[in-house]
Amino acid sequence: MKKIIKNGVIVTATDTYEADLLIENGKIAAIGTNFDTNGVEVVDAEGNYVFPGGIDPHTHLEMPFGGTVSKDDFETGTIAAAFGGTTTVIDFCLTNKGEPLQNSIDTWHAKSKDKAVIDYSFHLMIGEINEKVLKQLPEVIEKEGITSFKVFMAYKNVFQADDETLFRTLVTAKELGALVMVHAENGDVIEYLTEKALKEGNTEPIYHALTRPPELEGEATGRAARLTGLADSQLYVVHVSCSDAAEQIAQARSKGLNVWGETCPQYLVLDQSYLERPNFEGAKYVWSPPLREKWNQEILWNALKSGQLQTLGSDQCSFDFKGQKDLGKGNFTKIPNGGPIIEDRVSILYSEGVNKGRITLNQFVDIMSTRSAKLFGLYPQKGTIAVGSDADIVIFNPNKERVISAETHHMAVDYNAFEGMNVTGEVVSVFSRGDYVVKDKKFVGEIGKGKYLKRAKYGSELSSKERETLQSS
Amino acid sequence: MKKIIKNGVIVTATDTYEADLLIENGKIAAIGTNFDTNGVEVVDAEGNYVFPGGIDPHTHLEMPFGGTVSKDDFETGTIAAAFGGTTTVIDFCLTNKGEPLQNSIDTWHAKSKDKAVIDYSFHLMIGEINEKVLKQLPEVIEKEGITSFKVFMAYKNVFQADDETLFRTLVTAKELGALVMVHAENGDVIEYLTEKALKEGNTEPIYHALTRPPELEGEATGRAARLTGLADSQLYVVHVSCSDAAEQIAQARSKGLNVWGETCPQYLVLDQSYLERPNFEGAKYVWSPPLREKWNQEILWNALKSGQLQTLGSDQCSFDFKGQKDLGKGNFTKIPNGGPIIEDRVSILYSEGVNKGRITLNQFVDIMSTRSAKLFGLYPQKGTIAVGSDADIVIFNPNKERVISAETHHMAVDYNAFEGMNVTGEVVSVFSRGDYVVKDKKFVGEIGKGKYLKRAKYGSELSSKERETLQSS
Amino acid sequence: MKKIIKNGVIVTATDTYEADLLIENGKIAAIGTNFDTNGVEVVDAEGNYVFPGGIDPHTHLEMPFGGTVSKDDFETGTIAAAFGGTTTVIDFCLTNKGEPLQNSIDTWHAKSKDKAVIDYSFHLMIGEINEKVLKQLPEVIEKEGITSFKVFMAYKNVFQADDETLFRTLVTAKELGALVMVHAENGDVIEYLTEKALKEGNTEPIYHALTRPPELEGEATGRAARLTGLADSQLYVVHVSCSDAAEQIAQARSKGLNVWGETCPQYLVLDQSYLERPNFEGAKYVWSPPLREKWNQEILWNALKSGQLQTLGSDQCSFDFKGQKDLGKGNFTKIPNGGPIIEDRVSILYSEGVNKGRITLNQFVDIMSTRSAKLFGLYPQKGTIAVGSDADIVIFNPNKERVISAETHHMAVDYNAFEGMNVTGEVVSVFSRGDYVVKDKKFVGEIGKGKYLKRAKYGSELSSKERETLQSS
Amino acid sequence: MKKIIKNGVIVTATDTYEADLLIENGKIAAIGTNFDTNGVEVVDAEGNYVFPGGIDPHTHLEMPFGGTVSKDDFETGTIAAAFGGTTTVIDFCLTNKGEPLQNSIDTWHAKSKDKAVIDYSFHLMIGEINEKVLKQLPEVIEKEGITSFKVFMAYKNVFQADDETLFRTLVTAKELGALVMVHAENGDVIEYLTEKALKEGNTEPIYHALTRPPELEGEATGRAARLTGLADSQLYVVHVSCSDAAEQIAQARSKGLNVWGETCPQYLVLDQSYLERPNFEGAKYVWSPPLREKWNQEILWNALKSGQLQTLGSDQCSFDFKGQKDLGKGNFTKIPNGGPIIEDRVSILYSEGVNKGRITLNQFVDIMSTRSAKLFGLYPQKGTIAVGSDADIVIFNPNKERVISAETHHMAVDYNAFEGMNVTGEVVSVFSRGDYVVKDKKFVGEIGKGKYLKRAKYGSELSSKERETLQSS
Repeated sequence: MKKIIKNGVIVTATDTYEADLLIENGKIAAIGTNFDTNGVEVVDAEGNYVFPGGIDPHTHLEMPFGGTVSKDDFETGTIAAAFGGTTTVIDFCLTNKGEPLQNSIDTWHAKSKDKAVIDYSFHLMIGEINEKVLKQLPEVIEKEGITSFKVFMAYKNVFQADDETLFRTLVTAKELGALVMVHAENGDVIEYLTEKALKEGNTEPIYHALTRPPELEGEATGRAARLTGLADSQLYVVHVSCSDAAEQIAQARSKGLNVWGETCPQYLVLDQSYLERPNFEGAKYVWSPPLREKWNQEILWNALKSGQLQTLGSDQCSFDFKGQKDLGKGNFTKIPNGGPIIEDRVSILYSEGVNKGRITLNQFVDIMSTRSAKLFGLYPQKGTIAVGSDADIVIFNPNKERVISAETHHMAVDYNAFEGMNVTGEVVSVFSRGDYVVKDKKFVGEIGKGKYLKRAKYGSELSSKERETLQSS
Repeated sequence: MKKIIKNGVIVTATDTYEADLLIENGKIAAIGTNFDTNGVEVVDAEGNYVFPGGIDPHTHLEMPFGGTVSKDDFETGTIAAAFGGTTTVIDFCLTNKGEPLQNSIDTWHAKSKDKAVIDYSFHLMIGEINEKVLKQLPEVIEKEGITSFKVFMAYKNVFQADDETLFRTLVTAKELGALVMVHAENGDVIEYLTEKALKEGNTEPIYHALTRPPELEGEATGRAARLTGLADSQLYVVHVSCSDAAEQIAQARSKGLNVWGETCPQYLVLDQSYLERPNFEGAKYVWSPPLREKWNQEILWNALKSGQLQTLGSDQCSFDFKGQKDLGKGNFTKIPNGGPIIEDRVSILYSEGVNKGRITLNQFVDIMSTRSAKLFGLYPQKGTIAVGSDADIVIFNPNKERVISAETHHMAVDYNAFEGMNVTGEVVSVFSRGDYVVKDKKFVGEIGKGKYLKRAKYGSELSSKERETLQSS
Repeated sequence: MKKIIKNGVIVTATDTYEADLLIENGKIAAIGTNFDTNGVEVVDAEGNYVFPGGIDPHTHLEMPFGGTVSKDDFETGTIAAAFGGTTTVIDFCLTNKGEPLQNSIDTWHAKSKDKAVIDYSFHLMIGEINEKVLKQLPEVIEKEGITSFKVFMAYKNVFQADDETLFRTLVTAKELGALVMVHAENGDVIEYLTEKALKEGNTEPIYHALTRPPELEGEATGRAARLTGLADSQLYVVHVSCSDAAEQIAQARSKGLNVWGETCPQYLVLDQSYLERPNFEGAKYVWSPPLREKWNQEILWNALKSGQLQTLGSDQCSFDFKGQKDLGKGNFTKIPNGGPIIEDRVSILYSEGVNKGRITLNQFVDIMSTRSAKLFGLYPQKGTIAVGSDADIVIFNPNKERVISAETHHMAVDYNAFEGMNVTGEVVSVFSRGDYVVKDKKFVGEIGKGKYLKRAKYGSELSSKERETLQSS
Repeated sequence: MKKIIKNGVIVTATDTYEADLLIENGKIAAIGTNFDTNGVEVVDAEGNYVFPGGIDPHTHLEMPFGGTVSKDDFETGTIAAAFGGTTTVIDFCLTNKGEPLQNSIDTWHAKSKDKAVIDYSFHLMIGEINEKVLKQLPEVIEKEGITSFKVFMAYKNVFQADDETLFRTLVTAKELGALVMVHAENGDVIEYLTEKALKEGNTEPIYHALTRPPELEGEATGRAARLTGLADSQLYVVHVSCSDAAEQIAQARSKGLNVWGETCPQYLVLDQSYLERPNFEGAKYVWSPPLREKWNQEILWNALKSGQLQTLGSDQCSFDFKGQKDLGKGNFTKIPNGGPIIEDRVSILYSEGVNKGRITLNQFVDIMSTRSAKLFGLYPQKGTIAVGSDADIVIFNPNKERVISAETHHMAVDYNAFEGMNVTGEVVSVFSRGDYVVKDKKFVGEIGKGKYLKRAKYGSELSSKERETLQSS
């Protein structure tokens, strides 16, 4: 059935204008005014913005970590995402050395298939590069449409790859048309600092931050960027947390390198002092990289404003405070890393960014949706409001003031990282491929209705039709 | 009468998609497919791109300079612009110290009113700031909709303003909502170097470049940017020609400053060696700032790619080689500065930028049109393809290969700066407010049909309707 | 009569070693051990350092400023200098536009001739460059041995020169073998900010700092450095006060430019908050450039350590708090700029620099003496302890702790800028050309015994004998 | 017996002056004029410079490498050094993982003891850091006086240490008072590029350079510098070859870090094109890091001039062209790395540096001698001309023009890297502890007379007497 979204202000990464949207077969069929409303469901967006649905390029749903598993899975996680204005998530598929990549991908399909309420895709972790792995990668791209590979420069003896692996991944990605993602921290030195802290009896959450200083993120970011330049390849630095790393990315870009940077809401509004909260509450704020000193925030905002950072990921990886985070009592290295962010990502960017005049409305859409669609091969199916695109739409009331709280959030965990924070702007309704997922702030979606998305190669510019063909292949 | 542009690929600063455009009353009424074509003129854009019309933010039409007058006026200049895919020009209105600003504006209205074939607006030169001038500025903004002020840091004893004037302009612009533009070269030192060169008998065109070295552009650019930061104001650096200046802008932006940069086609593809061409041909390539050593080109392209420079102006200021440029035989300071670029601006950006993989198709639209519309208060009336915007449209064949030549160009001068250059891509048809100006490569426009455009204040985000109201006020 | 300084630790800009000095005819005749002490005055320096006498490259003694005259003249000023371990000062000879330079130099000779207790020389201010001035400069160099020219980029309508003057001075200095010195602040913008502050009723001393923000020093420093590079000349930036300016100098030097930087004790240990002291006490701390936010201090120290700044000047220009500084009550622009620093320059550098581990002992000697001797053409007569050099010697007790105070200082003014500050290290005795000026902390010198020093051209490396010839010419 | 060196111009890192030196018991007893020459050997240095003997901080004498051994041993190598004006060498003692460090040191003592004609010392390679190694280090410092540890970031699977080892070495060095030296190239990526080149049949010498691009040196240098900052330790980067690495060092230093840089003559005057010489001659010019594009040279010179690089090492590691270098025919990875530089190090720095106006005479002494003495704990025994220092003296004729050639050099190998190069300046005579080693260009030294030098801890400032005590301990 057709729908018309009327009277809203449509906002894309470039445009802001008043018009109506005609939705047919899950796609945007036309944009105009005075559409014939006969036999059409009319949605009134008067006074609201009409955004393309958010794309969260960085989630870890139901991910095993340090002997436990992140609490939000593809069901609760995507429901929360939808409430927050996100209609696509790209989750990280972890792999194991020596094991066929397809096994890991199958595990991820099994986790997600009957649970997701919005569309989703996977990045693939690369832990090693050898002849066996090299043989599997073309198929991963062609058959699974997975066109982004993640390399960890940290988590020694767990995920960490050496520089040769990183470089080979960059070279291979260039050849095959994939985007390399890095977790940029120097894991070798973190290992040493961590051991030293524990040996000295420094076990509190704050030591998580103190053993992962910003120099180590800056160093690794610069290293990855230089290797990218040498390989003439493409790089996406996940979860940039500090000035030092942002500067390395800016320098690389000014030389014309294809280096991109993502930051996260937590780095924009929280800071290192949170890790010192009493009663072990600091554990709620343990991320890697860690929260930084407050002065970094303005620098990250400036980097978003000037285009030196391009996207915002949630790095969603939620754990209950009780029963999970508290595994690390007496030893900060046992605190599961990560937090519940998927639901508030878009709101915080709007409220702190647009509403406070740090970025424009169009930049906001670019950062929270469009740029990720383009970098990760989802565009133009996702990431914009244009004729032929999927009708993944968010109706957003820019004036509503509200308070973020675990009491009202939809994530499965027992705390919210932004508890008590006032934000301006609220997601009213959300559509995925033309169907309501959230209607007037109530969930009306269908569990398992989200589809897996194959993605185009890095740098390819597909038409809507070509993406459709790819998707159905 | 309605028009439908069918089967083209619509390209905006963000989007690329296949759809049809419905044009009504000079505006884009709807975007979709399968429009009813009854009683509608159908334009087939099959195989072509459909771009928003280009905006040239930097022209000098019929401008007095050094005892002569630039050859292309608002008639020949705007015809040539249209042939090149540009549908809006913003010309520089020169002022005289001590004289009411309105006089100068009236002069410019008189030059343009019955001649322009596309829409146009004016920037205003600020030569001095005193109580008298300060009193006139609010009216200039309110009544004339002129929201950008140009300050010259060069041309000593002619246009040059001192730093106090520049700073006061920045402060005033901040208060009033205007954008300050600078010609950034250190005029004091140029004066000295020029005198010295002449004294030493160095009179050939190449000395124009050698007496205006890039250090002086870098210096002035950095100075203007720092003063902008101090005033917490906004700055647009015109005609950035070299690495040194581009770097200053990048540094300012990385601190979050509102500093913007424009480059020109000539700096992207020509170089200093052109000034050494024999038979005084070097004079054809005399711009201020001058053409630079070739290695600067890649740096300017990288700056466009990474978003450190944002727009492309033509700095159109054309003079015949015979009868005008040759005034400088025997004394390079008498060569009129400038050249005929307005017609080839868009083509060169497409061919050398998009076609050679240096920038994306959407960046191209942003650079040649959208960003200028936004910076100079013309958006959303101009600069994009969205419902409610003026139907200023270019149909562009991306595959056509052709040669630029004075024999085929439409500018009024006897040479073309890019003579013999092969480019890919050709403007097929051009619409201004829904009416053909160029149809299948023939001029079908109407002299004097172009309208003067009042512009919104810097940083204001008007809706279509609000812009309409402003325009008709 | 001969003297032997025994048992001390001799320290030069390179060396630290135990030996005795034999002084004869005012010069260092030999360095060794076990000298024959028959008929020789023996000075025991056991437990003390033996330094070359300090060179203060930046003083304003008895200088007219804003309707008053700086309090310390060549008598009190040089006595205080000697007490502080300084044995040579280079004072700024101010000039007046249109007037013969020799007149000004004669005025300065008259001020100093019968008063100085240590040797001294003059820099020459350049307020304008025209044919007349150009004709006089070679004589100034040849006859007066004045080989450093000062250009002011600030003090609009008083001392300020425009960029053409600065550039011509750079070009001329290159030709003639002189070093150009700049006061680097953007006077145009300061003028505006000052007027604005007064207009808004902001008259307190702190507004002196707020109307001369560091951006304006950074800007002017960068400008001067770039013009120096273009002229392939040599530049010495006086009184660098902030990070921004220091960075500009470092950048210039990393390109191989001959750009040098001086800072002052006040910028190393005092900060902007001093200007907010109650009861108009802030006026005591009014310098141009002003004291900066405290974080700049560490950056200036790092610049000294890494060699990016090379010298320490006092910028001595003292005014009584009562009767002079208080001329600015109710209008900060009337506060005479400057303070009494000449006496504590060396002590502060030792105590805060060497004693706190920020610089080495040899760097200390270089910064407070040797480098100035070399840059300003006094070496090897002054600035080191080597055979053939003048026996300008300081015996320094590195372990003595004491408190700086106006009650014990020897300057002619009624306050000390470092009142109450604890320092480690004390000047015990001071020799000028082999004669005691200070002996065991008592003044034993002779008024008017100081000689005027002709200086060698920039970059020339004279032998002792050649300097002697120059001096006696 | 006493000696007097008369009539020369004594030059130190700071001073240049005419005086005579009295030498007694191998030490400088006095500096003066008119010494009693009774019973004293008088050396006439008229018209010559008198320098402190050069210190070569970087040699590999008789070092095993890739199945062969570097040709010059402690005999031929130190004789050649002396002919070149060097009186101290610090050689790298290689270690083997798992083996006691003392074993390696004993091996190096055995190599050198009865061969060296000048004094020498050792740096110690650190290949691993574990409890065992940590226990041995204090003894290495105390007993052997080895206070500098070398870590390789390249030569994967041979010398290369990982970042944890580097960081632990930095932390340990800080605690113990040692200076960490790094070979800064990213060995992981070099490994990959090398394998790839060979696989593609690219076996010629030029591929040695192409598989070790400057980005990898810049990257590793920046990494080491950042880790040094984090550890608050001290770092000396050996053989800096390119702009990229020099810039990283400059940045670290501008933040106040204790980071030092050494370059080598080959990087200052030779370039990458040498590796393309026909008939496998390119193999003569194989160093790691490799020779770079010529434009880097000026940047390295500027870094020496501005103090961003501080020392000059030879990286002496010589192999015959026939029989050794040609092991790499058909496979560039088999070419022994290194060349014969020890003899020409000082001459090239003088001729290309001082004589061409790039550095001053005093900087020359600092770079080729004094700074190494200070950094490596040899000062004031070595590295200067001061009372109490060893009489390691070079008499140098600055005007002699000559040609460098294998035919006249004293190194044991069959080619000279600077064959045919014209240089100005010649070492005439050389003294080690007061005794001639080279007299009027003839070797008159004694094999095995060179002594092993214990070195003081990093940052300690010993007096002559304290150094003596250390040495004899």
